[in-house]
Amino acid sequence: MEKANPFLGRDVVSILDFSREDLEYLFKVAEVMERFRRSKIEILKGKVIALAFFEPSTRTRMSFETAAKRLGADVIGFSSVEATSIAKGESFADTIRMLDAYADLIVVRHKFEGAAKFASEIAVNPVVNAGDGKQHHPTQAMLDLYTVKKMFGKIDGLTYAVVGDLRYGRAATSFIYGLTLFNPRKIYLVSPPLLRARPEVVEYLRKKGVPFEEVNALDEVIEEVDVIYVTRIQRERFPDPLEYEKVKGSYRITLDLLSRGKEHLKVLHPLPKVDEIDKRVDNSKYAAYFEQAANGVPVRMALLSLILGAELGKVGADL
Amino acid sequence: MEKANPFLGRDVVSILDFSREDLEYLFKVAEVMERFRRSKIEILKGKVIALAFFEPSTRTRMSFETAAKRLGADVIGFSSVEATSIAKGESFADTIRMLDAYADLIVVRHKFEGAAKFASEIAVNPVVNAGDGKQHHPTQAMLDLYTVKKMFGKIDGLTYAVVGDLRYGRAATSFIYGLTLFNPRKIYLVSPPLLRARPEVVEYLRKKGVPFEEVNALDEVIEEVDVIYVTRIQRERFPDPLEYEKVKGSYRITLDLLSRGKEHLKVLHPLPKVDEIDKRVDNSKYAAYFEQAANGVPVRMALLSLILGAELGKVGADL
Amino acid sequence: MEKANPFLGRDVVSILDFSREDLEYLFKVAEVMERFRRSKIEILKGKVIALAFFEPSTRTRMSFETAAKRLGADVIGFSSVEATSIAKGESFADTIRMLDAYADLIVVRHKFEGAAKFASEIAVNPVVNAGDGKQHHPTQAMLDLYTVKKMFGKIDGLTYAVVGDLRYGRAATSFIYGLTLFNPRKIYLVSPPLLRARPEVVEYLRKKGVPFEEVNALDEVIEEVDVIYVTRIQRERFPDPLEYEKVKGSYRITLDLLSRGKEHLKVLHPLPKVDEIDKRVDNSKYAAYFEQAANGVPVRMALLSLILGAELGKVGADL
Repeated sequence: MEKANPFLGRDVVSILDFSREDLEYLFKVAEVMERFRRSKIEILKGKVIALAFFEPSTRTRMSFETAAKRLGADVIGFSSVEATSIAKGESFADTIRMLDAYADLIVVRHKFEGAAKFASEIAVNPVVNAGDGKQHHPTQAMLDLYTVKKMFGKIDGLTYAVVGDLRYGRAATSFIYGLTLFNPRKIYLVSPPLLRARPEVVEYLRKKGVPFEEVNALDEVIEEVDVIYVTRIQRERFPDPLEYEKVKGSYRITLDLLSRGKEHLKVLHPLPKVDEIDKRVDNSKYAAYFEQAANGVPVRMALLSLILGAELGKVGADL
Repeated sequence: MEKANPFLGRDVVSILDFSREDLEYLFKVAEVMERFRRSKIEILKGKVIALAFFEPSTRTRMSFETAAKRLGADVIGFSSVEATSIAKGESFADTIRMLDAYADLIVVRHKFEGAAKFASEIAVNPVVNAGDGKQHHPTQAMLDLYTVKKMFGKIDGLTYAVVGDLRYGRAATSFIYGLTLFNPRKIYLVSPPLLRARPEVVEYLRKKGVPFEEVNALDEVIEEVDVIYVTRIQRERFPDPLEYEKVKGSYRITLDLLSRGKEHLKVLHPLPKVDEIDKRVDNSKYAAYFEQAANGVPVRMALLSLILGAELGKVGADL
Repeated sequence: MEKANPFLGRDVVSILDFSREDLEYLFKVAEVMERFRRSKIEILKGKVIALAFFEPSTRTRMSFETAAKRLGADVIGFSSVEATSIAKGESFADTIRMLDAYADLIVVRHKFEGAAKFASEIAVNPVVNAGDGKQHHPTQAMLDLYTVKKMFGKIDGLTYAVVGDLRYGRAATSFIYGLTLFNPRKIYLVSPPLLRARPEVVEYLRKKGVPFEEVNALDEVIEEVDVIYVTRIQRERFPDPLEYEKVKGSYRITLDLLSRGKEHLKVLHPLPKVDEIDKRVDNSKYAAYFEQAANGVPVRMALLSLILGAELGKVGADL
């Protein structure tokens, strides 16, 4: 390798911990990993990876697990707090200390803001945030950006609409933060008033000089955008059920709506989706979300390999 | 191998998807796998198998997992829906698409009829039904028939009594379907009137010309049968608890009852059993159910190897 | 190996099944295993270990799992009864029979006294008790004693205070039983009257002639002790919540209290802890409990290797 590995031994707490160059480096390794998505390369043999999912998840957990196992690592962990000592009142810190003693890297998912950061301060081994609180889900942003890169050959110069729950949705927020590392032409933040992007996010966009605009409906900007990033709007965010029903309808992505957009328009979604995207979109040229989900494996294979210092030369990665 | 592998790349939805010849081929491979039941052969190294258990199971899940691991495959998955995105409202189809992207084969267990079939239409990779709805549990039927074959040297020409819940019990129904691929001397369908075999099953037996008879009590036919296949009768099937208590008693298998049967009589049960078999039967010559459960591993090792095209020549399988 | 392996093929039900010599043998192997705590040695490749956790646990389960995987074994099992056939009414015996058919060693955790013993009578393969009932948790005692050995170079001749719930705490009781295999200078049993050591434990200490004394508060003996073994006092043990609050306070370990003790004083705790140890103790020289938890891996690696007859010569263990 000519360039030094910028991920070696590092914690991954926020997408903003990384530079554009770091992500481009990661994407190159992810491209190599695509060749091994259906095989087992043992470059992480001897490593134990702990998956500490204090909050349920299927996709993130299973793609980390698949990535780890395809790299030859072993996996331990839990997928909900019920069967753990947390239920007996153990502190988060003690649970992390235990995992740190058993494993060589800890992947943490938690509903509280800052949980991954806190874990990274306690653990000697690297900690990877698999989503905590309302803002950070850095590995999701990595695979989202990787998907855009694969689809358009670039991340710069495109117009993005980030749609849905921008207030509580950590995937959407991390994607927006991730875009600030590149040069998007413009970002439209499309949400109902109740679910507007958090002030600190808007502030950050302003500070970074990223062109953006908050709009209420996707159809106002559909002709302009290249990438639509859709997220789920949860019923429980609305005090009034009628309000929810109204909002749900107007943020629904249909073939009709998409057909008014650009020819190469792509729809991303961190998944799971419920009914915010019409099922007929699934088999259309617009749907990028299944490939996006699949990209979770090579991107996480790349990330785990880099953090744990796997010998990438062995698998022909010439970096 | 001289004969082409009839399982290569195939979905396993129903036992009726296969021919007698297919099953005989499978049983030959299972016999080879028995030699490796206590070791690890890495003929599926590089494969990831997803266990998607939307409904709880211990035996089926763990025997698939043991089989996969003894073959060198890696395993991902979930053992109940609570800790998955299904709980967030994700569609079954989207969950299957995700697993299809991560794994090379998907094992599905679901309470709804047709779930495995539906999954097989969505997934590019092979899907194996680990029990869905009220009728299909093909891998259970495979290991049940294999157990009969091992015990009697044949499946043809024997008299079977299938006892218990023939209406809702998927293992019993799959066993009956499986027998129609062979030439049983006769099948007695023994159940309380409320739990009679489903019309489509009875119709199928008729169409296939399989000799069968519906009877109310096992003691009417105990002298004639070679194999008794017992299944659990669940309390919740009965509107009237008194009716359940009555039925439970008359479908109980005791040493007394068995001693009136043939010398070589064997009792099978898909397990778990509750109290439909007297505990004293467990250690008698009649009990075949523990060996039957153990056969789940070599039969599933054979099936997974064949579907995924493992090089069986490497482990000395001369087919 | 010069000495015969006293663990080969054995069940591990109680720490009292073993002699001092057996434990010293185990500790020697554990010392070798420490070298491989961060790598993978495949001396148990081909073995499947079943983790049958009928009662939740994080530390014990994950350290067994880490140990097994670092040794190259595969792991199957469950971490709570909900997703198993136990929920359908299957007997414990049948569940054990099933695991015995799939796996080469069964680790059992259960809330009932005698569950591991019962399992060991049913299973052909070795059974290891990972905690059952109120008294036995032999592998915890092994790692606790190993920790003392590492910290003090010996177990004999030290003064111990075992503090907290001595009535229901299986870790504390197993530690006391374990000490009787050595020559402690004295054991102080420190607990509120409601949570005194069980009569059979006190009787056993008497019979063995181990010097001990029951006291109500740690500060009476703090100057004398070398090792404090603290356990959690559970609220639900007290009929009167006020009584609990009082007790909780007086059994709390603080830096103040510890600073009145010996210079080399060490605090052990089986973990999880709640608030019986002041958080400021965590980073002090007194805290041995995090290292103790970490020792779970090499000690269990040693135990699993010995029971399953791994070729220890391969990893340079000269015994």
